[in-house]
Amino acid sequence: MVKLAIDMMGGDDAPHIVLEAVEKAVQDFDDLEIILFGDEKQCHLNHPRVEIRHTTEEISMEDEPVRAIKRKKDSSMVRMAEAVKNGEADGCVSAGNTGALMSAGLFIVGRLPGVARPALVVTLPTVSGKGVVFLDVGANADAKADHLYQNAVLGHIYAQKLRGIAEPRVALLNIGTEDKKGNSLTKEAFRLMSETDQFKFTGNIEAKSIMEDEADVIVTDGFTGNIVLKNLEGTAKSFGKILKNDLLSSLKNKLAALVVKNDIKRIAKQLDYSEYGGSVLLGLDGIVVKAHGSSNAKAFYSAIRQAKIAGETKIVENMRAKVGDSDE
Amino acid sequence: MVKLAIDMMGGDDAPHIVLEAVEKAVQDFDDLEIILFGDEKQCHLNHPRVEIRHTTEEISMEDEPVRAIKRKKDSSMVRMAEAVKNGEADGCVSAGNTGALMSAGLFIVGRLPGVARPALVVTLPTVSGKGVVFLDVGANADAKADHLYQNAVLGHIYAQKLRGIAEPRVALLNIGTEDKKGNSLTKEAFRLMSETDQFKFTGNIEAKSIMEDEADVIVTDGFTGNIVLKNLEGTAKSFGKILKNDLLSSLKNKLAALVVKNDIKRIAKQLDYSEYGGSVLLGLDGIVVKAHGSSNAKAFYSAIRQAKIAGETKIVENMRAKVGDSDE
Repeated sequence: MVKLAIDMMGGDDAPHIVLEAVEKAVQDFDDLEIILFGDEKQCHLNHPRVEIRHTTEEISMEDEPVRAIKRKKDSSMVRMAEAVKNGEADGCVSAGNTGALMSAGLFIVGRLPGVARPALVVTLPTVSGKGVVFLDVGANADAKADHLYQNAVLGHIYAQKLRGIAEPRVALLNIGTEDKKGNSLTKEAFRLMSETDQFKFTGNIEAKSIMEDEADVIVTDGFTGNIVLKNLEGTAKSFGKILKNDLLSSLKNKLAALVVKNDIKRIAKQLDYSEYGGSVLLGLDGIVVKAHGSSNAKAFYSAIRQAKIAGETKIVENMRAKVGDSDE
Repeated sequence: MVKLAIDMMGGDDAPHIVLEAVEKAVQDFDDLEIILFGDEKQCHLNHPRVEIRHTTEEISMEDEPVRAIKRKKDSSMVRMAEAVKNGEADGCVSAGNTGALMSAGLFIVGRLPGVARPALVVTLPTVSGKGVVFLDVGANADAKADHLYQNAVLGHIYAQKLRGIAEPRVALLNIGTEDKKGNSLTKEAFRLMSETDQFKFTGNIEAKSIMEDEADVIVTDGFTGNIVLKNLEGTAKSFGKILKNDLLSSLKNKLAALVVKNDIKRIAKQLDYSEYGGSVLLGLDGIVVKAHGSSNAKAFYSAIRQAKIAGETKIVENMRAKVGDSDE
C-alpha cells in the first residue's frame, strides 16, 4: 500500500482536475490511499481510500515562495508537506506554485543526509519515444561541480527505479563532446564523473543530441536545465506556428494541411515537457512531485502514478543509502 | 569599395563552394574586392576584382585552435587574418575550424581597446521572420556580469548597423521574467543593464520566448548561448524526424504527408541557424565572419554579404567609439 498526500488547491484548474485525477487513480490502483488537503466544501469525492482534510489557506502562483511556506501554515501545500514529514504519507503531489513547493520540500520535508542541493528532474521526449531523464531543471541555479556529480547519482537511481533501466548511461550536458570542452563548472564536473564507479558515465553530450536517445540520464545545472526545458517548449510551439502558417499559406497544400494540422498540434504537444506528467524533486527525505500548473486531469493522474511508483520502488530509501555516506 | 579577405580552404566543401560564392558576390556587387587565400592550383577564378594569394598550409577541423594559429603561419586562415590586421582588408570570412578562427581573431586581428572578451553573434529565426540578434554563442564560456553588459553594447550596435533597427530592444536571457530571477551571474548583469542609458534594456526574457519577436537583441553567456543554439538546431531536426515518422506511419495521411514532406524539411532548415549565413565575432579590431562548416555556396555568399554590410556601416569604428572609453 502506498499513501500519498495531495494538494487539492494547486494549479490553474484546481480543484476540479485534481479530484477527477484522484478518483481515477483510486479506481485504477487498489493499493493506493490518498489524503486530500483543501477546501472540504469543494470536495465531492466519496471513496473509502480517500480522506479529506480541510485547510483554510491557499498559496497562489504570485506568492513569494519562502514567505508563503513560512506564513501560510494552514495552506493545502504546507499541510500536505507536513504529512510527508511526519510519516503519514509516503509522498505528495501538487500542481501549485513551483518555488513554494521547492521551499516546502526543503524546509518541511527536508533534505536527505549527504545531499547538498536537491534537484528537479523531468523526463524529456526522445525520437524513439523512450524518453531521457534530465536534471536539474531549476532547483539549484548556482550549482558547483559536486552538485552536478550528486545530480548524476540521483538521476541514475531515478532512471533505475522509475524507468526500469538496469544500467543507465549518464551523460553531462556540455558545449562539445570532447573531454576538455566546457566552462570551468562542466570541466570540473567531467573530471569528478570520470573518476567514479557509482554510475556508468558516458561523457559529454551536446544540446542538439538531447532527444536522440544517446543517453538515459543527462545532467546539468539548474540554470542551464531550465533554459533548455523552456527552449524546448518554445521551439516546439514556435515550430508548430511556423509550420501551420506556412502550410496554410501555400494554396496547393491547403487540403494536405487540413489533414495533418491535428497531427502537428499533437506532436508539438508531445515535445512539450508539461505534458509529461510531473517533475520530481530529488534529494529530499520523501517523494515530492510537481505537476505542471496547467495540468489537465490526465497529466495530474500521471503525476500521481509517478509518485506511487516512486513509493513502491523505495526511491528515497535507495538515495539515502547511496548518498548518505558523505555529509556536506 | 569594401575589400574582404577570404579563406578559400576552410569548410567541408571548400574550395568549391567558396569559389562559387565569391564569383557570385563580385558579380552582384560592383563595390566589392576580394583577396582569396588558398591553393592557387585549385582556383579557376579569373576576375579583375579577385586576387589570389597562394598559401601552403591548411588548418583542419581537428587542429587544436591556438596551436594551429601559432604554428601554421602559411595557412589560408592565418594569412587571411593578417590581411585584416595590416589594413589590407576591411574584414574576413572563413568556414574553417571555429576555435581556430576565434583564436586568429583574438591573437592576430586583436581586440578593440576596452573590450574584455569578444562575443560570437548569430541571428536566430523568429515566428515573424524578422529574426533576433543572439549573443554570445560560444566565444566566452566563463563570462562575468560585465562581459554580459559588454555583449549587450556590442549586440545593440550590431542590430542597429547590420539589421537597421533604430532602437533595438535588448533583453537578458534568464530563467524567469521577474527582475529578481536568475543565478548570481544574471542577477548582477540585470543590475548593470538596468542602470545604463547606452541601450534600451527591456528586462529578462525566457528561453521559450526567443523566437517570439519580444526582443531585437538577446544577451547571454557563451556557455548558455551555445547550448541554446544547439538545442534549437537539435529540436528542429528531432521535431522534423518525429513529424515525418508520425505522418508517414499514419495510413490516412500518407498522401498528405507526401505533399507536405518538403515543406517540413524546408521549415526545419529554416530553424537551423547554420542556414543563416555567418556568425560574427564582435569586439575585434576588424570584421571576422564565421560561415558554418557545412555551408553551401548560398550560405557562404550570405556570409560574404554580411561582412560587406559590416564594412560599409563601419561597425568596428562604431564599436570602438562606444567601448573605447573604459579599458579593462
